[in-house]
Amino acid sequence: MLNVYAAISMKKPSPPFGELDLIEQIRQDFATSSSAVKLGIGDDCAILRPPPGCEVLVTTDLTLEGRHFRCDSHPPESVGHRCLARGLSDLAAMGATPIAAFLSLALPSTMLTKSAGRAWTKGFFHGLRALAELHSVPLAGGDTSESPGGRSALILADIVLIGSAPKGRALRRSGASPGDALYVTGQLGGAAAELATMLSRRRRTLNHQTNEDHPHMFPEPRLDVGEALQRRGLATACLDISDGLSTDLSHLCRASGVSAEIEQEALPIHPFARKLNAAAALQATLHGGEDYELLFAAPSSVKMPSTLAGVPLTRIGTLKTRRTGHALMTLLAPDGSRTELKPGGWEHFSKPASKSKKA
Amino acid sequence: MLNVYAAISMKKPSPPFGELDLIEQIRQDFATSSSAVKLGIGDDCAILRPPPGCEVLVTTDLTLEGRHFRCDSHPPESVGHRCLARGLSDLAAMGATPIAAFLSLALPSTMLTKSAGRAWTKGFFHGLRALAELHSVPLAGGDTSESPGGRSALILADIVLIGSAPKGRALRRSGASPGDALYVTGQLGGAAAELATMLSRRRRTLNHQTNEDHPHMFPEPRLDVGEALQRRGLATACLDISDGLSTDLSHLCRASGVSAEIEQEALPIHPFARKLNAAAALQATLHGGEDYELLFAAPSSVKMPSTLAGVPLTRIGTLKTRRTGHALMTLLAPDGSRTELKPGGWEHFSKPASKSKKA
Repeated sequence: MLNVYAAISMKKPSPPFGELDLIEQIRQDFATSSSAVKLGIGDDCAILRPPPGCEVLVTTDLTLEGRHFRCDSHPPESVGHRCLARGLSDLAAMGATPIAAFLSLALPSTMLTKSAGRAWTKGFFHGLRALAELHSVPLAGGDTSESPGGRSALILADIVLIGSAPKGRALRRSGASPGDALYVTGQLGGAAAELATMLSRRRRTLNHQTNEDHPHMFPEPRLDVGEALQRRGLATACLDISDGLSTDLSHLCRASGVSAEIEQEALPIHPFARKLNAAAALQATLHGGEDYELLFAAPSSVKMPSTLAGVPLTRIGTLKTRRTGHALMTLLAPDGSRTELKPGGWEHFSKPASKSKKA
Repeated sequence: MLNVYAAISMKKPSPPFGELDLIEQIRQDFATSSSAVKLGIGDDCAILRPPPGCEVLVTTDLTLEGRHFRCDSHPPESVGHRCLARGLSDLAAMGATPIAAFLSLALPSTMLTKSAGRAWTKGFFHGLRALAELHSVPLAGGDTSESPGGRSALILADIVLIGSAPKGRALRRSGASPGDALYVTGQLGGAAAELATMLSRRRRTLNHQTNEDHPHMFPEPRLDVGEALQRRGLATACLDISDGLSTDLSHLCRASGVSAEIEQEALPIHPFARKLNAAAALQATLHGGEDYELLFAAPSSVKMPSTLAGVPLTRIGTLKTRRTGHALMTLLAPDGSRTELKPGGWEHFSKPASKSKKA
């Protein structure tokens, strides 16, 4: 395979590099032999052939400079990784298998014409491609544009993920019942704690090895867990924790028409969050968001394994019958006291946020 | 159906309007009963069920303020219409039938909090919804975000279209052979001519009735023509004229490994372009772009109807064997002289353009 980003990063003067060159480079670099992609980059549409007996799942996620990442704090490999991870995590939440990704990307012109810009672009695609290869996801198309705004032009990306799941088997938010047990994968609060550390440093984090634990910079979408839950019929409802446990749990409760009780002592707090004081650790765990772990419900009669696809599962609470006038979500403290748990994740148009909600 | 945009446009003080409210409004306003959409807005992914025996076609198109439209010249209804039309036209070019659209939309916060912004947002969705209803395309999901950049924040949209076509029947760019005749639908140059008029006025065009001929503001994606070409097996190659005849023809020639001869006198010039001087009219027709007509090839033995799905078809030239050292495209003038035709459409990262290329 040609390493097409070599051309982007070379320092000596190079011939004018236009959009068609970029597309051709992407096409070559993401060349795929996936049997489900009958036609990839280069025509008006891509042609996909989903497995027989399957439904098609679709999700789109924006990644915008100044809102979802900052060039002065995030290495470009992290931006590319997180861009794809957001979409893959949505597929994981439904128990789906990825078929292909599509990337709409607008870049300031300097990202192709200047040496530093080319290095950024190369790093972005490097991060995106590494995660795509890990999960065998071909990049089958998209759109490119110069981003508008002149000197204040920003990097703008929208990732589209197409996946498949056997007919009627995809995990939804709406299937849980009172009495179901609530579980999460992995540990919570790590992404918020790592982000806080990154921003307090006020310089770009140089370490961008994905083989270390970087819950904010290189979150791991839980595709294998989601597929196992779907295949084994273990979960009645599932979603990913992108906006924070409290906000995403409220989505599950509303969609399923139930209320929830969370046991504070049961929450699996990430070691990064444990380094904070107790209040900040709890805040990160309940409301931090962007952990991209899965939150799911299962009948209490199901004997849930302690790990699934190598990822720890933790029971954090129980779903209850929803009663008018009562709290949708309740937090049970170690001392037995009960407090109402309110959604604490960000909402985009009402607060100076750094995340986004799914439509 | 609830008219949810009434809330957006009301002038008296209203309760804080957040992103979740916007999503709920979109969900209600674009409520659909499409049998192919098993699950729409409101979960991590949408679930689609394509028709049996079909492949799935996917295309994404950016629509960025300051690049694809200007708020001071384009009415919001036109922006919403064109946003969706770009994606539908890609499906038309492949002979596909739309299943669903997905919209990723980033808006400056003032588009929800200020009266003028709400009116713009309402107009945008009005234009998008009118075209969606015309072609029975449900809006099945997407993403929303506040757009970054503070006071210089821009309106950013990415539309995703999912369609279907019977296995192996989608029209590609690559199937044409030497000897095939070249056709276009409708008339060319109208979009460029209308845009030039709009920009010369230096104020926003108020007329936004889609039932009049506005090739730039309200282009008509040729879905019925594309489907008929596919169903009747008339075309060997097809694409839409989004970047200009010369540029899109060069894509067809390269993908099919042929060269092309265009007869200048045969070109169907739009009445708007005919009002320009002869040189400008030819420029708009050959290079103008954004007409969203279809360019297709068919064996010369095929007796092509003069209209298809009510749209005129015009033979504009012939494909030839490609020879090294010879022109890829040739223009035959009325006086019999031959000149090389070079791609004259915009390329995004090399010129101050107002269009974008597909990846």
